[in-house]
Amino acid sequence: MAKPIAYSVKAYATNGAASPLALASINRREPQANDVRIQILYCGVCHSDLHFARNEWGFTQYPAVPGHEIIGRVTAVGSSVRKFRKGDLVGVGCLVDSCQTCPDCQAGLEQYCRDMTMTYGSPDKHLGGFTFGGYAQGIVVREEFVLRVPANLNPAATAPLLCAGITTYSPLRRWKVCRGQTVGVVGLGGLGHMGVKFAHAFGAHVVLFTTSPGKAADAKRLGASEVVVSSDAAQMATQTGRFDFILNTVSVPLDLNTYVGLLKRDGNLVAVGAPGTPMQISAMPMIMRRRSFSGSLIGGLPETQEMLDFCGQHAITADVETIRMDQINEAYERMLRSDVKYRFVIDLASLA
Amino acid sequence: MAKPIAYSVKAYATNGAASPLALASINRREPQANDVRIQILYCGVCHSDLHFARNEWGFTQYPAVPGHEIIGRVTAVGSSVRKFRKGDLVGVGCLVDSCQTCPDCQAGLEQYCRDMTMTYGSPDKHLGGFTFGGYAQGIVVREEFVLRVPANLNPAATAPLLCAGITTYSPLRRWKVCRGQTVGVVGLGGLGHMGVKFAHAFGAHVVLFTTSPGKAADAKRLGASEVVVSSDAAQMATQTGRFDFILNTVSVPLDLNTYVGLLKRDGNLVAVGAPGTPMQISAMPMIMRRRSFSGSLIGGLPETQEMLDFCGQHAITADVETIRMDQINEAYERMLRSDVKYRFVIDLASLA
Repeated sequence: MAKPIAYSVKAYATNGAASPLALASINRREPQANDVRIQILYCGVCHSDLHFARNEWGFTQYPAVPGHEIIGRVTAVGSSVRKFRKGDLVGVGCLVDSCQTCPDCQAGLEQYCRDMTMTYGSPDKHLGGFTFGGYAQGIVVREEFVLRVPANLNPAATAPLLCAGITTYSPLRRWKVCRGQTVGVVGLGGLGHMGVKFAHAFGAHVVLFTTSPGKAADAKRLGASEVVVSSDAAQMATQTGRFDFILNTVSVPLDLNTYVGLLKRDGNLVAVGAPGTPMQISAMPMIMRRRSFSGSLIGGLPETQEMLDFCGQHAITADVETIRMDQINEAYERMLRSDVKYRFVIDLASLA
Repeated sequence: MAKPIAYSVKAYATNGAASPLALASINRREPQANDVRIQILYCGVCHSDLHFARNEWGFTQYPAVPGHEIIGRVTAVGSSVRKFRKGDLVGVGCLVDSCQTCPDCQAGLEQYCRDMTMTYGSPDKHLGGFTFGGYAQGIVVREEFVLRVPANLNPAATAPLLCAGITTYSPLRRWKVCRGQTVGVVGLGGLGHMGVKFAHAFGAHVVLFTTSPGKAADAKRLGASEVVVSSDAAQMATQTGRFDFILNTVSVPLDLNTYVGLLKRDGNLVAVGAPGTPMQISAMPMIMRRRSFSGSLIGGLPETQEMLDFCGQHAITADVETIRMDQINEAYERMLRSDVKYRFVIDLASLA
């Protein structure tokens, strides 16, 4: 296709794995027929942003602009856009394009499409180079990847729903977490605190597993009925065979066999956090109670909209600390120390 | 309860891990009100029998009588038995009792009952000591654990359905293997050859994974459409992302990450064979395609009856080599060399 006309917006970018994020100018395409132009109001700070900015996954191309928990206001729409109009409050998550024709896309599971375009770090099919994320004044996105945001939710606290929210909502829904079940959530960070909120909202009895006893009061405020200190072997031993479902949100290697042992017959341990190294798993405890270990990646567009609508109906948002754009490098350092309750969100007005 | 009157039957027993199986006399209880007395006609030889006879799992009590793939003729029934009468052809599998009240039993999944009695090696609630298996002239079993055997099936070739059959049938059913799917079976032994037959009967496109290229022709005769030599990395690489379901029937440690990589989105790798040592698994390939790794244990009584009825309707039995009782020690040695196509079955008439 012909390269569209571009315009520039202010953003925070980094030019190398060891460089801080700093003010830069990046190009966005002029909206094409089915594009939505969005003024970004807030962007959540996901741990993936840090991995990407510092090339910890090895595929980062510089300059790099992270950010995939975007809340903004529509400022223009392409000629064929019917779902959105100027002034709408919208969200954009981890994806901005996909093939729309493969079985994954047809199933509304665009996150598994082989030709999916990530919000940042994927080849940019319109302008060349690589896609830039939401640490910017604006973004232009194909309308199928733009989500409606319920008007009753605080926009800053809604931003993290676009990644941390859907990443935890999707597996809880897929494995049918509901009232009467006992559900474990491992880790109380950006993902974990949303996992606790959703599992509680779905009616489950929620148990938080954490290495930090100090998080107990907060976990209960967020919806957990019990807190288990996972580094305490005696406490862990009392949990054997209790759980219908356990959601692992941490990215450090987990003692899988211990957590598998906590599952009931037909229980499932699902990872949304992925350590870089393999873990040990024994077949026998899986066999003896027909247990499963699974993974789950974000969520598709239909389910992300369903999640946002559910959050609107149940007044669910993330617990956030709003920062200025120029505080991002300090925020990364604090995130590495788990010094955030539970998600930083950038107020992009600070970039004006 | 009062200890019932016992009578003796001939059996093959072993008195220690290093001792061969040899002729012995064991006690069976006189049938109680809901018991069925069975003259054993055939008993399949499962690899578990060998593990148990040689105390390879560490819990064997001696004398020990293996055997849990039993086909026999009803010779007497207790006063309250209504489902069976003298002369019926029946089967007994891996279980002979359970609590009947726990959630597992209520769900017809007696194999997961905490109070389940295995056909051999469990505490015998009637006579004391430990239960004796099917390498014997007769057995007495609570009627709920006795199965009807379709009249059109060869009785000797039906015996292995009681363990090898249901162990592979159950996970294929639970994970809804059907026409239009591509299904892998790892290993072509007693379990694997039944897995191939069932997956084919359910309409799936079946691919056998084996380290023995010489098994290809046999695998195709049994129902596989393709054979992949799993030790050939180049062949394995061509299989990436093809499979809806893979059933692992081997008990040696498997390269889980390689097999996980062969699964489609939402595919499941299910173990029914359990190596004694843990295996390595990486979370990322699970997450990126929402894949699962699970275990499955035998099957419950309702499903075992369903499986036998299915086999009757589709004329499915095991491929067996019938042996005399006094050939059992030699059969164990041949089994260790994989020198059996695909299950030994003892003709108990040889014990008369």
